This record gives sequence, structure tokens and C-alpha cells, in this order.
Amino acid sequence: MTDYRRLRVALLGAGAVGSQVADLLRRHADELADRAGASLELAGIAVRDVDAPRDVELPRELLTTDAETLIVGSDIVIELMGGIEPARSYLLQAINSGADVVTANKALLATHGQEIFDAADQVGASVYYEAAAAGAIPIIRPLRDSLAGDRVHRIMGIVNGTTNYILDRMDQEGAELADVLADAQRLGYAEADPTADVEGYDAAQKAAILASLAFHTTVPLDAVHREGIVGIDKAMMDAARHAGYVIKLLAVCERLTGQTDASAAGEAISVRVYPALIRRGHPLASVHGANNAVFVQAEAAGNLMFYGAGAGGVQTASAVLGDVVSAARRHIAGGVGVGESTRANLPIVEIGRVVTRYQITLEVDDRPGVLATVAGTLSDGRVSIASVEQTVIGDDEEGTGSARLVIGTHKALEQDLSETVQRLADSGVVERVVSVLRVEGD
Amino acid sequence: MTDYRRLRVALLGAGAVGSQVADLLRRHADELADRAGASLELAGIAVRDVDAPRDVELPRELLTTDAETLIVGSDIVIELMGGIEPARSYLLQAINSGADVVTANKALLATHGQEIFDAADQVGASVYYEAAAAGAIPIIRPLRDSLAGDRVHRIMGIVNGTTNYILDRMDQEGAELADVLADAQRLGYAEADPTADVEGYDAAQKAAILASLAFHTTVPLDAVHREGIVGIDKAMMDAARHAGYVIKLLAVCERLTGQTDASAAGEAISVRVYPALIRRGHPLASVHGANNAVFVQAEAAGNLMFYGAGAGGVQTASAVLGDVVSAARRHIAGGVGVGESTRANLPIVEIGRVVTRYQITLEVDDRPGVLATVAGTLSDGRVSIASVEQTVIGDDEEGTGSARLVIGTHKALEQDLSETVQRLADSGVVERVVSVLRVEGD
Repeated sequence: MTDYRRLRVALLGAGAVGSQVADLLRRHADELADRAGASLELAGIAVRDVDAPRDVELPRELLTTDAETLIVGSDIVIELMGGIEPARSYLLQAINSGADVVTANKALLATHGQEIFDAADQVGASVYYEAAAAGAIPIIRPLRDSLAGDRVHRIMGIVNGTTNYILDRMDQEGAELADVLADAQRLGYAEADPTADVEGYDAAQKAAILASLAFHTTVPLDAVHREGIVGIDKAMMDAARHAGYVIKLLAVCERLTGQTDASAAGEAISVRVYPALIRRGHPLASVHGANNAVFVQAEAAGNLMFYGAGAGGVQTASAVLGDVVSAARRHIAGGVGVGESTRANLPIVEIGRVVTRYQITLEVDDRPGVLATVAGTLSDGRVSIASVEQTVIGDDEEGTGSARLVIGTHKALEQDLSETVQRLADSGVVERVVSVLRVEGD
Repeated sequence: MTDYRRLRVALLGAGAVGSQVADLLRRHADELADRAGASLELAGIAVRDVDAPRDVELPRELLTTDAETLIVGSDIVIELMGGIEPARSYLLQAINSGADVVTANKALLATHGQEIFDAADQVGASVYYEAAAAGAIPIIRPLRDSLAGDRVHRIMGIVNGTTNYILDRMDQEGAELADVLADAQRLGYAEADPTADVEGYDAAQKAAILASLAFHTTVPLDAVHREGIVGIDKAMMDAARHAGYVIKLLAVCERLTGQTDASAAGEAISVRVYPALIRRGHPLASVHGANNAVFVQAEAAGNLMFYGAGAGGVQTASAVLGDVVSAARRHIAGGVGVGESTRANLPIVEIGRVVTRYQITLEVDDRPGVLATVAGTLSDGRVSIASVEQTVIGDDEEGTGSARLVIGTHKALEQDLSETVQRLADSGVVERVVSVLRVEGD
């Protein structure tokens, strides 16, 4: 055995991820020491309740409720408690006491990331957070290091496993959302309160983290446009399938050019989370079950995709341990860490300024002149039609026929589109706006 | 403008990748400086012929034929010449003169990697080679850093774009290899001499690099079992499709356990390149055209896949520039580089010791008892049958009928399998062994 320098590691939190990290740190100690070039000594595990049941059995003597004392003198602090406080205070304490820190806390980074990165910059410490963006999928290092010489134009991520599981089953089985959600809750794929997943809050946090990193710009969580999947039903899924698409909840981080009130180069960014249509042949369309994937379009590298498990205790623990080894190597090698750059500081545009393609599904009166009225309204609203499919759907209660119109648009400004859809709804010929979905990835 | 420390960068080679790197270094100088924390001054570009035509116009005054003089005093040396010599000597000169080096030279790393990594270790320099394994796809950093706390069990890579382009078109169009190859040569997807691609030499070099990194073991190129795609024909493609598979040229790097004459833990590795059957639902099956992808199975992280352009001048330049930024950051931050670990040094087993599933296609006499003979021979050879499909294929020239047998096996030892197939060929009932293909990824 090589005689390695010993590094004191403090672990905060022993939930699904934390207990796996503790277990792997102890079981793979020799291997980790060889890779890190340092012996990683788990000094203790801070928990709320030392007697709570754990996924993995942990030595009683390592457990403590006194995180602040545990942090003192630690070289590396791993924060896996989740939530804003006390996680934020502990991380700042750790950084200010000279530790490098590893965190998987997406809620914290999406809201207080800049404060934490600034604190680390001040003292030359490093913050590692590979597990905060897409679970086990290595996406932070590729964005920060591999693509450091390139320019990212767009990121499209399936970054929430629960919603992908639900949408995938709806697509595969023709099931309704409520039924699949109930099943997912029973199987443990969805929480008892699924709001954070199905309303897109979790995906929005990850989008903020990815966009900040890719565009060197602080992206506050409230600058992320967010729509969840609760409005998606079987009929929309079936229509998407019929048209050669699948519906996925996407986190889209996009660099825009030619924005008039934006930076000198006319650049700005948009960060948004919503269910969107993706054509079946796109690599993101074949991401099934609870898996995640991040599709990156860069100027030189072209299209890249990173695929894997987006959640899960042991999977996420892999990403955390990779960060711990990196932190240890840096501690041994010396030098200062790579800070998070916000030098670009691009303006973030409102959703209304975003340009995408749309698929609009309308129920209209089936009588002469209706299509002309619809087409005219779209044209007046600067929304250009790419395709129209009309299907007669039988008599309605007043005895007149109805038709379903599925309209694919060329690229249009979101603001123009939403105003136009409102005018269509008020036009007298449209019985119902069935759905308006963006089309991404074409 | 921040006043950055200036780093002297020497570029060796101005081919498809080199000329793009030179162009991006100059066009994105300000952005790269912000990201690297240093001003990257391109001191010169060493070429064989300063008057040769280039993909991108380069300033005449940067070109030189004197690489050795250019290297002197450089902080970062980028080697994009390809080939073994003089690339090897220049890299060693650069390392020994205190430079960090970036290379995309897979042939050199697969044959002299250890010499170069050792030289760098001696002086505390770093060697970056993201572009040597899978073009623009970030795979080196994920393996070295992100998965440093995990254990890689297996890598399956589509790492050669030319062969994937050929096999994909054969699959999609039902075309013959020779026709697609001729087309690929006309379109520039294949070289005039396609040997390095179609015989699997290029993939074998990449497999050696990936396996060395993933398993912390020096993998000499001649320890990589290599079979190309020249034996693959339309009939095999059609049969694969019929059975729900697609044929891909795979680089497989695998950790084996329970190897009797191996290391203490009974561990060994296998590194091999061959065309294999992959079921249609596998993420690797949907890698189309000249794209590459690397599928990684790790103990904790589970299944990960990295997808993107495996070649192309500007795409590969992205990976090279990412390395240049990393090298610059390290130069500025100080400290020693992360060496390439070979501490595991696992034994590498012969192909005969590998266990996979197979699909064996035979033409046999269509008469009673033949299937019993075939089944008995397989059973005697310790090859267990998972499925059999028999199709009558009409009368042969002697007037007796023939049948085609497609046999899927359970996992079997390669040595048992190949001996058994030989015995089948000699059994008197088998007219022809049509194909023997491994099945991977199930």
C-alpha cells in the first residue's frame, strides 16, 4: 500500500444519495485512494436524527447531529442534505474554513449559486456539483472543460426522470397521465406530492444551473420560464404520435442573436422548461423510462448527447464520488480552483421573445370559409403556416359539423403566436383551442 | 480587457484539424483568454510544406518547417501531425522542455502512450488527448474524472465513423458493402485506402486508449483483438434486421471476474473490436451515419452514453481547444498534473477466454436427424442453445433440399464456440457456415 496523505472528509446528509456515498467511500477506500492520490478519511456524517432508518447501514460512531463541529478542520465537505437552509450556511462555513466542497443540491445552486461560487473564489476553494444537474450523467465537466474552447448554442435536456417516465408510458401505452402518475407513485418513481416534478420546478432548477455554466451568465431561477406536464393528455400524445412526434418535458437553454436591446453583439439567452414535440428520429426521442439525456449543440463540436440515469441514490453517488476524487486531487496538486465564470453576463429574454415552431390543434366549425378565416388570422399575426391537416370529427350538439385542424407553423415569435391564438379563440369560428405545443429539435 | 498572462502556444500540423484549431484560436482569442485565464498566443505552426494548400487560410508568417525551434520556450504544444515519428520525438521534446501537451494522435498514444505519460509524470507535465478517442465527444474527462469514484465494468463504443456510415447505409438501404464503400469514398466519408477503417485498425487504437484509461492498465495495441467489417454482406444485414438486431462495429472493453490465472481478485480485462449484433432497442442501435457513441456501464452510475461527431476537422478542433483551455488553466493555477494511472495493471485475456452470446447461421441438409446432430455437437461443445429458427431454402444441386438454421446461443466461451463451429463444419451435415456473429449489449 502506498502511504498517502490523509484528507479529512465530512459528509452532510445520509439520505438516498448520502448513505450510498458513505458506503462507497468505505468499501472502495483503497481504490479511491489510488485514484485520488490521497487517503479519504470519512470523519463523520451529519444527520438530523442518528437513529433514523437508512438505506445502507452506517457505523453508529460516524453519525453526528453537530454538522458545524464536523466541518471544522475538514479538507472536503460533501453536502447532500438538500434544501436551502441549513445547507447554504454549512457550505459557506466549509468554504470559509478552507475546504473544497461537493454538492448535489440543485435547489440551492439554482437560487444561491452565485453567492457560493463568489465565496469560493474569494478563498481559492473549488465547488464541485456534477450530481446537481443530471444525476449520474457527466455534464458539468463536459460543459466546463471539454467545451471550454467552443461556443454552446443550445442545450435541450430531459433532466427530470419522473416526468420522462410518465410521458414515455403515456406514449407507449396510450395511457392517461393520472393513471400513470398513480402507478409511478406506487412504484416509487414519483413522490407522494409530485408537484416539483410534474410542474417542472425540478427541471427549471437544473436548467438554471446548465444555462449559467454554458453561457457564463448568472441565471436566476425566476428567469426560467416554466410549464409542467399536467396539461398533457392521451389525445395530445396520440396526435403527436400520429404526426411523427413524441412529447418530452424539455429544459431548453438557448443563445439568441440579433436581440435589439441586448449585449453589444446582439446576444441574449433564453432558458425555459416546457413539454415540447420532438420528432421520432431525434436522439432525445429514444430516451425512455426514467432516463435523462442532455443534447448540446456547439459551434465547432456540432451535436453531442449525454445519456444516463438522471436520479437514483447509487447512480447519483457515482457523480458525487467523482467530484470527491477531483477535489482530493486538487487539494494534493495545489493551485487555485477554476471559478465559475459569469463574464459573459448575457441578458435573459422573456418567453415572448423566443422563436420556435408550433403545432396548434383547433376544433372549428366545419363550414365553408372557416379555414380561410383561420389562415387569415394566422397571417395577420405574422405566424406562417407550414402544414395543415383537417379531420371531420362529427356533428356537435347544435347539429352542425365540427372539424379538427392541426396546424404546423414555421418559426414564429412566441408573443405573436400567443396573441394570434387568443384572436383565433375569439374569432367565432374556433370552438376550442385543443393544444398549442412548441416543436423543438428540428 | 483583462490583462492576462500570456502563454506561448505551438501548433504542430495544419491539416484538417490543425487548420481549424489555428483558425479558432485566432478568431476566438478574447473568449478563450477569458475562459483559460490566460492569453493564448499562437507562436507558430509547424508544417511540412509552407506552400501546401490548406482548408483554412493561415497567416504565412506563422508557418514554419522547423518544429524543434518552435517548441523551445512554448508553454503549450499542440500535436496534430499524426503518425508515430516525428510526432513522438516532438512531444517528448515539448514535455522535457516543460510544456503541457495536447494531442489527437491515437496511433501514437495506442503504441507509445506509456512512454509519453511516463515522461510527463517525471517532470510534472500534463498530457491532454480528448480528441484521440472519439473525436468531438467528451469521453476522456468523464472516464478520468467523473467516473473516478466508480468502477467501469464495460465500454462498448462505436468509435469509427466511416464503418458506422457504411453499416448504417447497408442496414437502411439493403445495399452491399462494396457499393456503399465506393459511395463513401466519393463523398469523402472513406479514404481512398480504407484499410485503417474497414479492417478495424482505427477502432482498435481507440479501444486501447479507452481501455487503458478505464481500467488503469497499459493496453498494448497488439493485445486488442481486431476484426473488421469486410466480411459483412447484405444477407447478414437482412438476417440481423429480421431477428431484431443491427450490425455495428464495436470496440468492447470489458472487466472480467473469476479469471483463474489472473490478479488477486480474479480480475482481468478483454479489449476487442469486431462487428456485432446489437438489438434495435439499445441506445447504440440508433447511432446513425458517421456519428460515434460510447456506451459505458459502471458499477454505481449504471448505463451512460456519450454521443456525437467522431471525426471532422472542426468538430475534433473543439475537443483540442477544450484541452488547450484545460492546459492553460493548469499552467496558471500551478500544481502538478493528474498522471495516467496504471496501478491496476490487470492481465489482458485472449479472445478465446471471452464469454458472449452468438448467432450462428448454417446451411444444412434438409433431412431427418440433422437438427439433432447440430444440437448434439453444440451441447458436446458446451454451447447452450437459446433459440433456433429453421427455414427451407430449396433444392441444392444434388437434388436434395437445404435448410438455413439460425441458432442463438446462451453465453459461451469464445474458444468453445470456435472449436464447436469447426466441428459443425466438419460434421457432414453442415453445407456451409454462413456467419458467426457475437451478440453484444443484451
